[in-house]
Amino acid sequence: MNHPPSTNTANITINPMNVIPLFETVGIIGVGLIGGSLSLAMKDKNLCRHRIGFGRTLNTLNQALALNIVDEISTDLSLIAQCDLVVICTPVAQFETVLSSIKPYLKPTALITDVGSTKQDVVAVAKTIFGQGDHPDDIIKRFIPAHPIAGKAQHGPHAAQADLYLNKHVIMTPLAENRPDYIERLKQLWESVGAVISKLSPLQHDIVFSSVSHLPHLLAYALVAQIANSEDAQTKLSYAGGGFKDFTRIAASSPEMWRDIFFANKTALLNDLRIYQRVLGHLEVCLTTDNVSGLEQFISHAAQVRQAWKPS
Amino acid sequence: MNHPPSTNTANITINPMNVIPLFETVGIIGVGLIGGSLSLAMKDKNLCRHRIGFGRTLNTLNQALALNIVDEISTDLSLIAQCDLVVICTPVAQFETVLSSIKPYLKPTALITDVGSTKQDVVAVAKTIFGQGDHPDDIIKRFIPAHPIAGKAQHGPHAAQADLYLNKHVIMTPLAENRPDYIERLKQLWESVGAVISKLSPLQHDIVFSSVSHLPHLLAYALVAQIANSEDAQTKLSYAGGGFKDFTRIAASSPEMWRDIFFANKTALLNDLRIYQRVLGHLEVCLTTDNVSGLEQFISHAAQVRQAWKPS
Repeated sequence: MNHPPSTNTANITINPMNVIPLFETVGIIGVGLIGGSLSLAMKDKNLCRHRIGFGRTLNTLNQALALNIVDEISTDLSLIAQCDLVVICTPVAQFETVLSSIKPYLKPTALITDVGSTKQDVVAVAKTIFGQGDHPDDIIKRFIPAHPIAGKAQHGPHAAQADLYLNKHVIMTPLAENRPDYIERLKQLWESVGAVISKLSPLQHDIVFSSVSHLPHLLAYALVAQIANSEDAQTKLSYAGGGFKDFTRIAASSPEMWRDIFFANKTALLNDLRIYQRVLGHLEVCLTTDNVSGLEQFISHAAQVRQAWKPS
Repeated sequence: MNHPPSTNTANITINPMNVIPLFETVGIIGVGLIGGSLSLAMKDKNLCRHRIGFGRTLNTLNQALALNIVDEISTDLSLIAQCDLVVICTPVAQFETVLSSIKPYLKPTALITDVGSTKQDVVAVAKTIFGQGDHPDDIIKRFIPAHPIAGKAQHGPHAAQADLYLNKHVIMTPLAENRPDYIERLKQLWESVGAVISKLSPLQHDIVFSSVSHLPHLLAYALVAQIANSEDAQTKLSYAGGGFKDFTRIAASSPEMWRDIFFANKTALLNDLRIYQRVLGHLEVCLTTDNVSGLEQFISHAAQVRQAWKPS
C-alpha cells in the first residue's frame, strides 16, 4: 500500500484511497469519444500509469496525443504485449479483425473489455477467437464485455472529456466463463470514473436496447426519409418544429455506426419492428373505423407512462 | 393618427408607431397557453383597448383574470356583441358548438380567427355555420383561420407568456371568401406580437403538419405503448436514455388534444401512416435479406437530410 504514485502524476489530484493504480499499462484501441474519455478519466483518477492509444491511421492518434488523451500512440498492435488492460473501442464490425490481431500479443494476465453497443454478437466473436472457456488458459475468461451509455452528438478525440461517465450507466454483461475477481476489477474501473454499474446477460442487454434505442433510431431515420422523399419535402422541412426536432435528433447519428448496430442486433430488432408494425396496424384500424375511444385509450396509456418516466 | 392611447396603459410601453390599437375590444374564447399568451402580448404591444376572456367554467377564467391575462371574464357568450375581434382558442372538437353559439351575437364588422392545429376541418365547420360566402353578409368572409406554432409542455393560464409568439411561425390559411384587408389586419396582429407569418391553403397546411407533427406524435405514442406493454417493461424503461427521451418527448402530450387532431386530420394522417408502414416494410426486408448497402444508403440519406436541417 506504500508504492509511490505514478511518475506521470504532475497534474493529477491523487486520491489517497487509491494510490496504487488498478492497472499499470492500458491499451485503448480506438481513441474517439468513448475510448478517449475513458483514457482521460483513468488519468484523472490515477487508475493507471501509462496509456497507449492504438489505431489504424496516425491522424486520429496524433490528435489524441496532442490532447493528452494518451501517453503514447501506435499503429503497431504488438505493443499490446505491454498492456495489463485492453479496451476495445472500435466499431463492433471491426471486432473480429481486432481480436484476431491482438490475440498473439496479449499478456497471460491481461484483462480485455469492450464498449460495443450490442453484446451477443461481440460475445460470439470473442468466443470464436478467444476460446469457449473449456481450457484453463482460454482468453475468454479474461474478456468481460461492457456497454457504457454515454453517447453525445460529437465524435472523435476532440469530443472526449474526463467526466463523460460521471453518473452514466455502464451495463456489464459478464460471461459464465469470467473469473469473479476479473469482473470485480472492471467494475471498480467504471465505478472509479463515476459510472453507475449494472449487470445484464448479453441476451437481456440486446433485447432491452433494441426496444429503447435501436428501434427508435430506425423509426427516426424512416420518418426523415419519408419526408425527404415526399413531393413537398422542402415545404414540410421548412415548417417542421420542436416536435420534429426532438423526435428526429437521433436520425442525425452516424449511419455507418447504426447500420452495424442494426445488423448486429438483427434478431431483437426485427422482433421489435414486427411488433411495432402490428401496433401501427391497430392505430390505422382505430382511425379508419372512427374508433375514437380505442385510440384515446391507447394514447392515454402511453402518455401516462411517458409522463411518469424519469431518465435514470 | 393623434388619438390618445388606451386609458389602460399604465404599465405599457407605448410604441409611437402604433398608438391606435388594431382593435378596440377583443374576445378570447379559451384563455389557456395559446389564447392567454396572445392576450398578454396584445396588451403588451398596445394592440387593443379591452380584452374579454370567455370560457365554460369560472375556474380557469378566474385564474386568467388574476394573472391580468384579460380585463374581464364571462361565461356568457352574449358579450361577444362587444368584440371587434374574436379569437377561438378552444379545442377544435368544440368549434361547431362555439361558432354556433357566438353567431347570433357577432358584430357585423367583427373579425373572427382561430388557433386550431388542423385547418380543413375548421374551415368545413365554419362554412357550415357562417355560410359559404355566396351572400354579401356571410360571416365566413370575416373568418380567417390561422395556426400559431408555439406549443410548450405546460398548459393553462399559468403557462401563458407575452413573448410566446416572438419569432414563432404563424400559418395563416385564408379563404378565397376573405376580404384582403381583413387578412392584412390579422397578419398585422400576429406580426405585432413578433410572429413570422406565412400562408398556406388549408389542404397544404394539413398535409404538411400531418407529416412533420401529427405522424411523429402517433409514432411516439406507439413506441411508448409497445415498451409499456412488453414483458420487460420496467427493465426497458429503467435503461432508456437520451435517445428515448427526445424521441418520446411528444408522447407526453395531452391525449385528448391529440386524439382530436388525429381524427380531425384523418385523411392526411392515414395517407402518411400507410406510406410509413411501407417504409418500415422496406427496412424489414433490408434486414431479413442482409441488404447492408441498401439499409446504409437509406439511413445515410436520412442522416444527411437531418444534419442539414435547421429549425426555422
